[in-house]
Amino acid sequence: MIDQLVAGIKKTEAPIVVGLDPQMKFIPDEVKNPVFDEMGETLEAAGEILFRFNKAIVDAVCDLVPAVKPQIAMYERFGIPGLAAYQRTIDYCKSRGLVVIGDVKRGDIGSTSEAYADAHLGRVMVGEREYKLFDADFATVNPYLGSDGVVPFLKVCDAQDKGIFVLVKTSNPSSGEFQDRLVLVRAGEFDEDAGGSIDTAFFTGKKNKGGLSLESIVLAAGKDGLRSYVLRPMYEIVAEEVARWAREPRLMGKSGYSEVGAVVGATYPEMGKVLRKIMPHSFILVPGYGAQGGKGKDLTHFFNKDGLGAIVNSSRGIIAAYKQEPYCDKYMPENFADASRAAVKAMRKDIREAIG
Amino acid sequence: MIDQLVAGIKKTEAPIVVGLDPQMKFIPDEVKNPVFDEMGETLEAAGEILFRFNKAIVDAVCDLVPAVKPQIAMYERFGIPGLAAYQRTIDYCKSRGLVVIGDVKRGDIGSTSEAYADAHLGRVMVGEREYKLFDADFATVNPYLGSDGVVPFLKVCDAQDKGIFVLVKTSNPSSGEFQDRLVLVRAGEFDEDAGGSIDTAFFTGKKNKGGLSLESIVLAAGKDGLRSYVLRPMYEIVAEEVARWAREPRLMGKSGYSEVGAVVGATYPEMGKVLRKIMPHSFILVPGYGAQGGKGKDLTHFFNKDGLGAIVNSSRGIIAAYKQEPYCDKYMPENFADASRAAVKAMRKDIREAIG
Repeated sequence: MIDQLVAGIKKTEAPIVVGLDPQMKFIPDEVKNPVFDEMGETLEAAGEILFRFNKAIVDAVCDLVPAVKPQIAMYERFGIPGLAAYQRTIDYCKSRGLVVIGDVKRGDIGSTSEAYADAHLGRVMVGEREYKLFDADFATVNPYLGSDGVVPFLKVCDAQDKGIFVLVKTSNPSSGEFQDRLVLVRAGEFDEDAGGSIDTAFFTGKKNKGGLSLESIVLAAGKDGLRSYVLRPMYEIVAEEVARWAREPRLMGKSGYSEVGAVVGATYPEMGKVLRKIMPHSFILVPGYGAQGGKGKDLTHFFNKDGLGAIVNSSRGIIAAYKQEPYCDKYMPENFADASRAAVKAMRKDIREAIG
Repeated sequence: MIDQLVAGIKKTEAPIVVGLDPQMKFIPDEVKNPVFDEMGETLEAAGEILFRFNKAIVDAVCDLVPAVKPQIAMYERFGIPGLAAYQRTIDYCKSRGLVVIGDVKRGDIGSTSEAYADAHLGRVMVGEREYKLFDADFATVNPYLGSDGVVPFLKVCDAQDKGIFVLVKTSNPSSGEFQDRLVLVRAGEFDEDAGGSIDTAFFTGKKNKGGLSLESIVLAAGKDGLRSYVLRPMYEIVAEEVARWAREPRLMGKSGYSEVGAVVGATYPEMGKVLRKIMPHSFILVPGYGAQGGKGKDLTHFFNKDGLGAIVNSSRGIIAAYKQEPYCDKYMPENFADASRAAVKAMRKDIREAIG
């Protein structure tokens, strides 16, 4: 599936994914009111409104971009009818030739992760019959539970020609609370050539609640011998695992990219630079452009020298463009999809100028 | 909602939650065949089968336990009809007086986490009308994205009298890959009285790719002065945040426990001991008992001196008891629910003997 994404990026010359994260407040009354008139203020109406809004935007931009990324939470919020709209959205986007990244951020253990992988990328048996479910092309995966949570997705990726993007460094302001924590790593635990920032040296000392004295360090050195450790942020540790999963030959595409990608926020360009090196075969899905503050010039480090290796997401900046500068002056709410098209073109220009 | 859970535990004398994680292979033909005959081998039939299986077990055990924990992945696997069975299961369990912990492990950022919190614990507006969605009593939450991902859940907990369990240390074999990583923490960053293991002292050195020499350490000490750090596993860092979220007075129940709990696997009892101290006001949801290898004696450290503070989950060990020793000899597949009842009683005895 990664090869299909790469082909789409080359064809459109736009490493852009449109985030289909509709919130009711983004959707013009021109879309909402006819549905409410017909179906009442029901959850089914909400699902229908989300779908119609998405469809109009997809119709307006599907020749300009290779991929879309529906955020399942925005559909799950409306319960079963909302999730039905998520499924319809995926089906419709695929019918328009788009690659669909299901932003589901699932992750659990063993048989449970297997069930999620089946649901979002795979198939399921009922008696003797096989069914596809949501059937996105890619899914986002949360790594906190370790390999147990990720490997079931890799199996489905292999069997069904699908891909995943593992959360490495997310775009939100508080992502550093856990992801940026400096972690003790034995020197050489990961391949040094793969990159990563080593800027602190470490020494084991003796158990000491109140800090340490120089004496205790020297003593420890004498007793345990010299052991070499380095400190690296947690997101690099996760990235090293992503790189390991991505190296699996069965998951490597003809394009030289793996079905195993990573999520790294545009809001942290310096970290993107390091992470790009740690995961040479992984596509990076880059959220945080636009509404969250990321700019075109921040994106250069996420790309490889081949001009590939990253795909940048914008959600609100595109789907709610008609409410924002400079589009709100030019487009009436009923022309929201045209505003989205203009916003995609502007984003493409911004990115292409940045990555040259 | 935590007070309701505590009351249920006191009434049943069983700090037990039954994990409703049905897999088709656990479900007897006696349940499956009539549904397939009626509805064919459809996704709708799969949903109906999951619900009927759950209902029989719930009817058999609802006087013995305070709570159930449906694992949404097992329903999501069957798409929309599966998720409809998840919703029916929650509704039915609540109608039988059980507290429902939705094991959804959701977690995203800002408005997206808000949407998940609305979906699983809260309400949503459609036009002028308000709807409840899945409406579980508690949800499990993944912390990898930091406060941005958790705070929206806390707001819904406050507004709707609900609770969450944050993943701290999961029960699976690979949970240590990221969760056990030793993290550098400034001494005193967290309240020392809150506990935690401090057993290594640290010294900054100079940038050094190949490890370090004793000289470089002494130099660093001379140049930067003495700074005191400690190393603590990542799961403790997460637990410290959970404790901080849990201390919020608006989320504190009359029982002395907070609406903010934590997930800590029975398979790691020594870690449970430390985590129990770090999060004194949090209930610990303990998976991994039974099928995953955790035993009654492993559980003592998860409880406070008041005999409360933890609730132990068993899924397969209860819902598939009829397939396992010692129940498989005594119960026919069609009496699977009776086997589940016997397994709950045995689990209650095991735990009560352990926690005395």
